[in-house]
Amino acid sequence: MAVKKLVLIRHGESVWNQENRFCGWTDVDLSDKGNKEAAEAGKLLKQEGFQFDYAYTSVLKRAIHTLWHVLDEVDQAWLPVEKCWKLNERHYGALQGLNKAETAAKYGDEQVKLWRRGFAITPPALEKSDERFPGHDSRYSNLPESELPLTESLALTIKRVLPYWESTIAPRVAKGERVIIAAHGNSLRALVKHLDNISDDDIIELNIPTGVPLVYEFDDNMKVIKHYYLGNADEIAAKQAAVANQGKAK
Amino acid sequence: MAVKKLVLIRHGESVWNQENRFCGWTDVDLSDKGNKEAAEAGKLLKQEGFQFDYAYTSVLKRAIHTLWHVLDEVDQAWLPVEKCWKLNERHYGALQGLNKAETAAKYGDEQVKLWRRGFAITPPALEKSDERFPGHDSRYSNLPESELPLTESLALTIKRVLPYWESTIAPRVAKGERVIIAAHGNSLRALVKHLDNISDDDIIELNIPTGVPLVYEFDDNMKVIKHYYLGNADEIAAKQAAVANQGKAK
Repeated sequence: MAVKKLVLIRHGESVWNQENRFCGWTDVDLSDKGNKEAAEAGKLLKQEGFQFDYAYTSVLKRAIHTLWHVLDEVDQAWLPVEKCWKLNERHYGALQGLNKAETAAKYGDEQVKLWRRGFAITPPALEKSDERFPGHDSRYSNLPESELPLTESLALTIKRVLPYWESTIAPRVAKGERVIIAAHGNSLRALVKHLDNISDDDIIELNIPTGVPLVYEFDDNMKVIKHYYLGNADEIAAKQAAVANQGKAK
Repeated sequence: MAVKKLVLIRHGESVWNQENRFCGWTDVDLSDKGNKEAAEAGKLLKQEGFQFDYAYTSVLKRAIHTLWHVLDEVDQAWLPVEKCWKLNERHYGALQGLNKAETAAKYGDEQVKLWRRGFAITPPALEKSDERFPGHDSRYSNLPESELPLTESLALTIKRVLPYWESTIAPRVAKGERVIIAAHGNSLRALVKHLDNISDDDIIELNIPTGVPLVYEFDDNMKVIKHYYLGNADEIAAKQAAVANQGKAK
């Protein structure tokens, strides 16, 4: 059978990335720069001849709009798309909406880095009465309250991303369908950790750049053969460094 | 149970509407005006407090983009969307791509009106070797060739729209889900004919304006209670007249 390909793409810059605030499940839109990044990613995919059979994304508009830009560029707006909360960004609990630099100045760089990158460390939890609790949002109204997070670590994010990958996405890739996933820094990190068998410690330092197509190739047993980014290597490295520096107080 | 609501919306003006060409299944995008119409329709829906549980559209980008504009305006980009070819515009056979006024000048207003509005009259059929045959388009690659049209009358369009309505969309509306359908002049005419029990003759004269939300209300037995357009009545009448005049030689 031919090599199976999967494309991952992290959404372009959001308005809150720009303001350096913790987004999590807050439904913040792409910035102008983010819209451009997403369209550029689509142009790269088109240039490399990528076409798809199925797309997955989260229920957050920064990922959905990123996908829409890509689909427009590859002229596949008609592609079937499944949107699922299991691909949402990590829930940042009571930090959602706070400025990262201010939070770092208050709690210290180290604490913020632990919250952002500590594998099993959860930010302060929301109360259910908090308007930021997903139970107040109609897009989650079909889910049992027990599934809705008050806060999440990367470990907890993995616990919802991986079963979705295993049950829903991977079987489609295994059948030879060409799949694209437009998602978020941490939901993609959860997936990449699994695909590349990265340790709990090392995943902390892995930064996925925004708006750059990341291609995985699998053999017939769904073993990863290789992965690579599309685009200019220097630009990608600069984007990764920018993500790594977001949590610092400056 | 509460009144069940369904919203229909015909895509905004396309680039070929503007050039007065027969579109059919040709995947032509919205014009700037069409994009604005779609966003305006979304603003109207938002203003009237509409929210949705599920959306249906065709596999043609002028309908899909119309839906995307509406979903953005009502802040529901996360809504599940099913795209199906059965909601496509009527297939215009060998007329696809031809200018309506030129076609009218050549064949006469009356013949063009028959092709456009004759209930069971099909335009000249495509050959399967024609690049316009849907069998050459990857979005239809999962369908048996026997399902793919070489040309369609309104009667033939109804034969694919109605089973899809009955099997897939209507049960959802009956359950009380708030559904929006973004589609095309003739696929919506097929549905409206059924919902309002319009005769084969009268349906010819029914013009659905572009980019105006058309609301249907149903009782518990899925009997139509009433229907109405949202927006300014004079503007809607002007839009309906514009559609009616498209097929004339000028």
